[in-house]
Amino acid sequence: MRTRFQMGLDDLRQKLLRMGGLAEQAVDRARQAYIDRDLTRCQMVLEGETLINTSEREIDEAAFDLLAMQQPMAVDLRFILAVTKINSDLERVGDQAVNIAERVMDMVEMPAADLPVDIARMGAAVSAMVRRALEAFIEGKAELAQAVLEMDNVVDRMKDDAFIQLVKTMNQRPEVVRQALDALLVARNLERVADHATNIAEDVIFWVQGADVRHNASTEEHPETPPGQSTSTRISGI
Amino acid sequence: MRTRFQMGLDDLRQKLLRMGGLAEQAVDRARQAYIDRDLTRCQMVLEGETLINTSEREIDEAAFDLLAMQQPMAVDLRFILAVTKINSDLERVGDQAVNIAERVMDMVEMPAADLPVDIARMGAAVSAMVRRALEAFIEGKAELAQAVLEMDNVVDRMKDDAFIQLVKTMNQRPEVVRQALDALLVARNLERVADHATNIAEDVIFWVQGADVRHNASTEEHPETPPGQSTSTRISGI
Repeated sequence: MRTRFQMGLDDLRQKLLRMGGLAEQAVDRARQAYIDRDLTRCQMVLEGETLINTSEREIDEAAFDLLAMQQPMAVDLRFILAVTKINSDLERVGDQAVNIAERVMDMVEMPAADLPVDIARMGAAVSAMVRRALEAFIEGKAELAQAVLEMDNVVDRMKDDAFIQLVKTMNQRPEVVRQALDALLVARNLERVADHATNIAEDVIFWVQGADVRHNASTEEHPETPPGQSTSTRISGI
Repeated sequence: MRTRFQMGLDDLRQKLLRMGGLAEQAVDRARQAYIDRDLTRCQMVLEGETLINTSEREIDEAAFDLLAMQQPMAVDLRFILAVTKINSDLERVGDQAVNIAERVMDMVEMPAADLPVDIARMGAAVSAMVRRALEAFIEGKAELAQAVLEMDNVVDRMKDDAFIQLVKTMNQRPEVVRQALDALLVARNLERVADHATNIAEDVIFWVQGADVRHNASTEEHPETPPGQSTSTRISGI
């Protein structure tokens, strides 16, 4: 027979999945809004933030209630703590989507400019990371989560390329400096969504394996990273 | 007589304070590095990140052990959960300091440019926010935390002003577009440190009052904010 505590854990998982769906939707809408210069979609992202914020609070309260209800076993405790951390990252994913929508709203006021950056491709990669991180959570599979950590390096390189190309554009074509800046900030916001997906993947691994992979995740594959310096969880400067 | 659990709580508090000191130091060093174009200080910030990451892990583990040790009372549970959230924000403050140091390292490669932005003043305001948020935590005072929430609006305005002025500079003086972009990103990073200080203040209030102020904090003072939409915890788009 299932206890009240176990039902509470299931409910917490369901709530987090819904929250994940909202965050993923927000990123997809923001990306599409950029591509189509679509103010209606921007507005949907802004309005969706309220729901995401409400969900974050509900999940934190549910986690708190479960911890207060009984002394959880270590594996359940790790699960509950992982949920609160993932929750916080999903809320920040929603914030990034709002930021992108705001940049799009700024861009739409100016003439469309042809810019050397493929936001559609970068956005698709980032959305895939969020989706896979949530799949890793649903299935409790560390291997899936590990794949997300590897994708983060690809997105980082896309953002670095975008930065280099867009700064060049700003130098050479002062008339589109503002559009280029908006695009650069959108690329940066997408890269930060990827960082949050990475955090989520690390929390899934922490939960499943009981090991803390944070700040060590990509050190081995990337010998150019100084020992002990994290690349995976750092929010990059540009 | 003090129980092992109570000693564990004290130890957790001490660990978090040390972590707070490291994060604060990182921001101060990064700001000073910008002002003096000082690569040595940049290097110190980069090296300090390792210690911050280690501390974050230790605090999470200590919190986990306390939760696993016995079933905490509601007030202790709220404290432990607040610590894990504050911990995560402090680590991200450290990340922002690293980002600033990286921008400074980029700027130093180019000729110094006179730019219409007062990073020193903005940095001082932001450092004060982090310091007060930690004081609110030490003293367990919601009023102190409330003051931090109000300071966040001031920093947001500074960042908006910096953005407007620096975009103008990029348009008018293409030869300093890269320096202006670096300064703009530093202003943005500082504003994000202020957001983390705000998060910390909200967690202190959650712990002290048992109320969740997140996503409601600045709605009342700012009637232009649509109901239910947060300004205080959102990481702004620029």
